[in-house]
Amino acid sequence: MVEPQQASPLLNGEENMTGAETNMRLKLPIICFILEIILIILFGVLVQYDDETDAREWHNKLNHGNKSHSEHNGHAESEIHSEYENDFYYRYPSFQDVHVMIFIGFGFLMTFLQRYGFSSVGFNFLIAAFSLQWATLMQGFFHGMHGGKIHIGVESMINADFCTGAVLISFGAVLGKTSPVQLLVMAIFEVTLFAVNEFILLSILGAKDAGGSMTIHTFGAYFGLTVTRVLYRPNLDKSKHKNCSVYHSDLFAMIGTIYLWMFWPSFNSAVTAHGDDQHRTAMNTYYSLAACTLATYGMSAVTAHDGKLDMVHIQNAALAGGVAAGTAGEMMLTPVGSMIVGFLAGIISVLGYKYLSPILEEKLKVQDTCGVHNLHGMPGVLGAIVGAVTAAVATTDVYGKGMEDVFPDVAKGDITASYQGVRQAISLAVTLGMALVGGLIVGFLLKLPIYGAPPDTICFEDNIYWEVPGDDDEEDHKDKAVRMTETERLNA
Amino acid sequence: MVEPQQASPLLNGEENMTGAETNMRLKLPIICFILEIILIILFGVLVQYDDETDAREWHNKLNHGNKSHSEHNGHAESEIHSEYENDFYYRYPSFQDVHVMIFIGFGFLMTFLQRYGFSSVGFNFLIAAFSLQWATLMQGFFHGMHGGKIHIGVESMINADFCTGAVLISFGAVLGKTSPVQLLVMAIFEVTLFAVNEFILLSILGAKDAGGSMTIHTFGAYFGLTVTRVLYRPNLDKSKHKNCSVYHSDLFAMIGTIYLWMFWPSFNSAVTAHGDDQHRTAMNTYYSLAACTLATYGMSAVTAHDGKLDMVHIQNAALAGGVAAGTAGEMMLTPVGSMIVGFLAGIISVLGYKYLSPILEEKLKVQDTCGVHNLHGMPGVLGAIVGAVTAAVATTDVYGKGMEDVFPDVAKGDITASYQGVRQAISLAVTLGMALVGGLIVGFLLKLPIYGAPPDTICFEDNIYWEVPGDDDEEDHKDKAVRMTETERLNA
Amino acid sequence: MVEPQQASPLLNGEENMTGAETNMRLKLPIICFILEIILIILFGVLVQYDDETDAREWHNKLNHGNKSHSEHNGHAESEIHSEYENDFYYRYPSFQDVHVMIFIGFGFLMTFLQRYGFSSVGFNFLIAAFSLQWATLMQGFFHGMHGGKIHIGVESMINADFCTGAVLISFGAVLGKTSPVQLLVMAIFEVTLFAVNEFILLSILGAKDAGGSMTIHTFGAYFGLTVTRVLYRPNLDKSKHKNCSVYHSDLFAMIGTIYLWMFWPSFNSAVTAHGDDQHRTAMNTYYSLAACTLATYGMSAVTAHDGKLDMVHIQNAALAGGVAAGTAGEMMLTPVGSMIVGFLAGIISVLGYKYLSPILEEKLKVQDTCGVHNLHGMPGVLGAIVGAVTAAVATTDVYGKGMEDVFPDVAKGDITASYQGVRQAISLAVTLGMALVGGLIVGFLLKLPIYGAPPDTICFEDNIYWEVPGDDDEEDHKDKAVRMTETERLNA
Repeated sequence: MVEPQQASPLLNGEENMTGAETNMRLKLPIICFILEIILIILFGVLVQYDDETDAREWHNKLNHGNKSHSEHNGHAESEIHSEYENDFYYRYPSFQDVHVMIFIGFGFLMTFLQRYGFSSVGFNFLIAAFSLQWATLMQGFFHGMHGGKIHIGVESMINADFCTGAVLISFGAVLGKTSPVQLLVMAIFEVTLFAVNEFILLSILGAKDAGGSMTIHTFGAYFGLTVTRVLYRPNLDKSKHKNCSVYHSDLFAMIGTIYLWMFWPSFNSAVTAHGDDQHRTAMNTYYSLAACTLATYGMSAVTAHDGKLDMVHIQNAALAGGVAAGTAGEMMLTPVGSMIVGFLAGIISVLGYKYLSPILEEKLKVQDTCGVHNLHGMPGVLGAIVGAVTAAVATTDVYGKGMEDVFPDVAKGDITASYQGVRQAISLAVTLGMALVGGLIVGFLLKLPIYGAPPDTICFEDNIYWEVPGDDDEEDHKDKAVRMTETERLNA
Repeated sequence: MVEPQQASPLLNGEENMTGAETNMRLKLPIICFILEIILIILFGVLVQYDDETDAREWHNKLNHGNKSHSEHNGHAESEIHSEYENDFYYRYPSFQDVHVMIFIGFGFLMTFLQRYGFSSVGFNFLIAAFSLQWATLMQGFFHGMHGGKIHIGVESMINADFCTGAVLISFGAVLGKTSPVQLLVMAIFEVTLFAVNEFILLSILGAKDAGGSMTIHTFGAYFGLTVTRVLYRPNLDKSKHKNCSVYHSDLFAMIGTIYLWMFWPSFNSAVTAHGDDQHRTAMNTYYSLAACTLATYGMSAVTAHDGKLDMVHIQNAALAGGVAAGTAGEMMLTPVGSMIVGFLAGIISVLGYKYLSPILEEKLKVQDTCGVHNLHGMPGVLGAIVGAVTAAVATTDVYGKGMEDVFPDVAKGDITASYQGVRQAISLAVTLGMALVGGLIVGFLLKLPIYGAPPDTICFEDNIYWEVPGDDDEEDHKDKAVRMTETERLNA
Repeated sequence: MVEPQQASPLLNGEENMTGAETNMRLKLPIICFILEIILIILFGVLVQYDDETDAREWHNKLNHGNKSHSEHNGHAESEIHSEYENDFYYRYPSFQDVHVMIFIGFGFLMTFLQRYGFSSVGFNFLIAAFSLQWATLMQGFFHGMHGGKIHIGVESMINADFCTGAVLISFGAVLGKTSPVQLLVMAIFEVTLFAVNEFILLSILGAKDAGGSMTIHTFGAYFGLTVTRVLYRPNLDKSKHKNCSVYHSDLFAMIGTIYLWMFWPSFNSAVTAHGDDQHRTAMNTYYSLAACTLATYGMSAVTAHDGKLDMVHIQNAALAGGVAAGTAGEMMLTPVGSMIVGFLAGIISVLGYKYLSPILEEKLKVQDTCGVHNLHGMPGVLGAIVGAVTAAVATTDVYGKGMEDVFPDVAKGDITASYQGVRQAISLAVTLGMALVGGLIVGFLLKLPIYGAPPDTICFEDNIYWEVPGDDDEEDHKDKAVRMTETERLNA
């Protein structure tokens, strides 16, 4: 009696309206299989275990370390005396926290739309699973080659997840308006550009950006915003009634928010130097986020309708403190400095949602579904600036021997701290440039009418790419008939 | 067509009934901003990185450790020879588990109410973000001062989360009947009293309470119960129809339950001594919880209506085993001892929900929304008693050199084990006294009609403080019209 | 007005139809209490802390290690010099990830059914809490006895969770058609057989199976499939309308899927040797899963209705890569090898859901609710075969000194690598035999009409064992009356 296919006559009607061009039967399998086969071939040719994951290499290191033990004082990081010194134990817990942010955090954060939950979690899952493999190769090309091979281990896994994060930020900007094929094509190019930009920043310019205020957030946001600008849909208001949340979808989104919030300290500290650096970065981020949350609640109540809190602010702006601590988190920002940064980020972010987003949409034709400009764009730029300033004022008095880990070139005396600040500022400019130019090109590429993008009337709707079961009401269809009769009896 | 504001005429009606006094436009921003600015000032004046997070201090320790390496056998904890010995690696995974319990666990556990999910997760988020900052200061004042400064690191982050846990327990007692401003005011005072009580117990009385059966659970529960008693609402039954769950809200609550259950071993072991102590505490808690779960299912079926299981019991009583292992978990309680404690805690907790809560509400006028008396109150007292007994029977034969970590004063020979048991018992009494007196005072303070508390008719309702989107039915409004016509056709 | 008990007249009708025999008032409490009391007695007699959790033993090891420090080069694993070398720090983070998979992963994965969410999460919780205690004893009998006592620590906790995993896989096969009493009886026997099979494979045959492709997945799947075959219900289609998902239930299920997917690297690596082995296993699994996900999306679109993605595939088949990397994950499978394995697993799994499951149900009368044959059965067998082949081609050239950790008998020269491959293949055959014979016997035992199993008409329905609150529509009952009138006005 309750056949899912028959349950939604209106949706089926819509489905008929769209017909063949959004059908994924050939397009999606072809791109998935071609991409995965290319990945497999390239991994086969290029990728190897690094010396912490390779059985022979690790045991060579281990035996060598043991033999030389009596000749040295202390443990230089390159000497290994115990299985317990494998980097797995000092990076993997952070990796798993980052992994949760990528798949649960981003995935569920975007489920706020009433009928786009399958796509939010599901496409997030698909493009993340692709991007992390592709990023392993791209990042490996640029800074992991050893004798013609890319060596991988837990640190490259974290970096691949980081790169994936940037793609998911861009996904937030175009959410609801793109087909999975379009998203995979976007990911191919964005991952590549990310790796180039990261290489320029970290290896050529010598900037520091452990938590990715620039490389991840600023890049991902402005890339995605440019893409969504190019893909501007003048008639998107035909899908307006789908482009909002319902009660339960907002609760699902809070799962994403809270996981992002909780694990952001692990995100920012995941690839910083071991010891005080990881410890300090996690703590700075923790206090930045806490301060940001109070700012967000305060600003939401003061700006929103009737003094009521707005879920959009809570779900997003409360996270801006993590973004803004992404560059300076590993520096001696101090707890109070972190709190001030988080506090400002929360204020800016809520103001962005309230006042800037409508302007961006109306004047600049940027249809930013998740408001990534407010969560990743502006707070990312803030984070980059804070990083530049914090770097510029670094002194040996404050950092001691720890300067080597945070600013190695300053510690060596090659450059001054102020010059490190300049590097940071240039890096921000480069990132913005790469994101805008890259987004422009990729946006036009994605405009080609071959990817099965949804028509303006059926954006923000799972039904177009997913077999959607009858919703809760289907089940009650029968019951409701009964209840209605009761109601009618009461009314009669 | 589907304007959220117009979607719920009845709720808007209610909203009009309440009017200005529950409006948060000024009250919430003012308290959020004032509190955060005070926090920032105090952090600026008082708080510093500890020597595991400070770049200079850590590297001084590290270099000193390396130099002295050849002079010593073994690694005393104060000597550092490697970045890997930073406490970050031995506390941070536990910290993240605790963090998940505080924000996801407590937050979602309270989403069981049908129309209070935004507030449950959202106010939980707000007061936790505030409390952890305030707790850093308060706990620092009482036991973290070094030369006029509070030194912070991962251990203080865990302790701040612990203190926050007590506030969230009290939140459970008053859930649905308080404004966010009231909750923040409650948190200010409760965090302060928590820090005083903790200082008395751990530093003055020399009690052990690593998982907080006394400091967190007993204190939080009886404080909250006293507050809700003072805030007694004789006409609360006007909101009775909102004070229950729906199918999906119970599933959301199970997310909270399961996370609390899974990570409780990390909670109880997060600040115990390194080595066997953390290991043993986690394992004791694991078995206590498992036994508690079987007791809960058995008791729920035997007491509940028609032999059916009651979600309230499963969501809450299954956790009592973690509470009850909070004090004795680090001691040589043995696996079987842990299971007996968990088993008893589960039985007591279900009986409390079934028989005691109605009496408390009717006779003592304690309106305990989440039943924190059954989950945290009684099991907390049980845990304190088990801790006192286990301490009293401790012998060097059982603990060996490990006595130093668990009962340092007994190991030094300053006191006997029985006296340690007496200390534990006194600590329970002090905690109960502090909670009751503190709750009484704070309760009366919260009674002032200035905080925008909800009227009796609109308790347990998000709409009063949140912009609530149309729920699932809104979206189907249009569809339903169609379906109804179909139904009518069928009926005709 | 909104009394949950009165809210669903149809369901109440069903309830009356079933009457006393499914009533759990006595059956469930009796079995829960008897089992827990037996567990407590056996733990009291047999179980002790191991030397990493026992205060005295650990400190003896620690002091001994420190004294002997100057006499040795390097740290053999048996020498302990620091509290930080307690295995807690090198296993517990993996344990917690596994724990999340067992309770959140499996629990929520099964919430896809529209009206069986309480039972999915709730019975998962109950039987897991029982199984982990019982598994501690059973696995301890077979390979953890020291002087007549079972010694336990974090590694035995992981193993207990692993064994529980197998029971939960079997639960997936019978989901919706069994009472909690039946499930507990099944768990008693399955845990016992699991421990026997594991002992034969790992200790007698000398096979390797760290992630349990054979011991957990193949065993759990074919055991469960045999049980559900024996419990065949010819009239199950009377409950067909309940045996499907709704929109939100599919989103809840995605929580389970994503957690399983994210933490599978921790699962496969949780009990492998320390160092490169854990590191490599986690990374192999990571890439296997990523490749599997792309295969799943491609296959789902190509096979499913109208080129749309099918949630059943995404929720399940995307995980097959983790299952298939369960045996070979710790070996030198290489990243590309892992990707190929995952890719094949995803393809096989989707094809199974699409074409094999209907045949199994119609021809072989195997009613496999969750399709465990496609997620755990076939991918488990694939994983076993991949493990056998990978073992057979192992060379000292590739493994170096690391051969000792992965294939100790090959490293010692006792057997050749090819013979290790034969061992692996025999282990698969033994596992299949144990699962089928065991499932047959236990299936007939569960057929006895004494456990309160649901009648054919009320399968896949929480209401039979749980007090179910009115669902979302109850709350709106009143509102809807109002809205209907509005609609009618519009229509008029």
